[in-house]
Amino acid sequence: MKTLRVPEATVTRMSIYSRFLERLDRNGITTISSNEIADGVGVSPAQVRKDLAYFGEFGTRGVGYNVQTLLKYTLRILGLDQTWQLAIVGAGNLGQALTTSRGFNARGFHVACVFDHDTRRVGQRIGQLLVQPLGQLPELAQKENIRIGVITVNNSMAQEVANIMVQSGVQAILNFAPITLRVPANIEIRNVDLSITLELLTFNLGLKAAQSL
Amino acid sequence: MKTLRVPEATVTRMSIYSRFLERLDRNGITTISSNEIADGVGVSPAQVRKDLAYFGEFGTRGVGYNVQTLLKYTLRILGLDQTWQLAIVGAGNLGQALTTSRGFNARGFHVACVFDHDTRRVGQRIGQLLVQPLGQLPELAQKENIRIGVITVNNSMAQEVANIMVQSGVQAILNFAPITLRVPANIEIRNVDLSITLELLTFNLGLKAAQSL
Repeated sequence: MKTLRVPEATVTRMSIYSRFLERLDRNGITTISSNEIADGVGVSPAQVRKDLAYFGEFGTRGVGYNVQTLLKYTLRILGLDQTWQLAIVGAGNLGQALTTSRGFNARGFHVACVFDHDTRRVGQRIGQLLVQPLGQLPELAQKENIRIGVITVNNSMAQEVANIMVQSGVQAILNFAPITLRVPANIEIRNVDLSITLELLTFNLGLKAAQSL
Repeated sequence: MKTLRVPEATVTRMSIYSRFLERLDRNGITTISSNEIADGVGVSPAQVRKDLAYFGEFGTRGVGYNVQTLLKYTLRILGLDQTWQLAIVGAGNLGQALTTSRGFNARGFHVACVFDHDTRRVGQRIGQLLVQPLGQLPELAQKENIRIGVITVNNSMAQEVANIMVQSGVQAILNFAPITLRVPANIEIRNVDLSITLELLTFNLGLKAAQSL
């Protein structure tokens, strides 16, 4: 597979195609064209073909794609042909929402532990899990083979939690705290800002207002 | 301002630049170069200049940008030179987290009401707000001038909530339910999938593993 210098937007769309293919497969659909994929996810057919071309040749001209085969490829490309154990640190509202969310417990992902530094939260039940004390992270990370850490603590704790995650052998961090964290270069880190999409909405509403003048 | 056909990725980066400029302004920094902006947010200087060029000429060659002026422009471009009242429907963990989150109560955004259809949640306090019955949405949306609705209910309720929002005069919807909602073409809608960034992490971890072979 060719996988060098793939734009992040392409990887994000691969996730979207892959989820769409899962839905088709569940509904018993066996072949699909790039036009139909484009229609189903709301991008142009040329974009679908260009995105897939980063990774090789999957379709047959005039026939389209075999849904199960293309789904299997997208999962492999996204690294989802294996299980990823997650640990969530921060058992507040957001941590609780993510622990039990479908997205964090599907497609190879599994929330294996939840931690909090607040002793009042330790021992509380979230779905199937009991909140563990933060001090247990290194030991449980090893025992549960945790490779991805999710940070849902507040800003003042986030860097300390990131440090503990790195020391515990976590390879990647998804950070929901609105702060820039410093981690070694070999650690994959992504920040999720839940409000940034709001500004995409207001930008577009502003455009519409300008065009209607 | 030129604002036609701006890529979504550019708009998202405008949000990021704008937040960075806010931080600089708070710290008393008055001028900045595109190289320093690029450094501060982790994109290339050429990208910063290209993004800003969609909207006009802001800097002076060799001098750079005035921080306050550029900040004001970015806020105006993003539609944040006004107040946007939000309503959140779904007072579960995610709804609670968003209601009290800094991002949803800053930069012109303000969560004005929270609703739930579950009578056990109605009347509960989340931060400064009391959870209202869903049936109150049309009336309160008008009274509070709600223009953006945020959906944090489960899949089975999400379309019904979207319909009520549209009937209540909401202009834009931010949907956290992992389902495709049908709304009239004049309504701005964006879906937020909290797990899609996880797949960006596993894609990159897969790349690293492949390169180290």
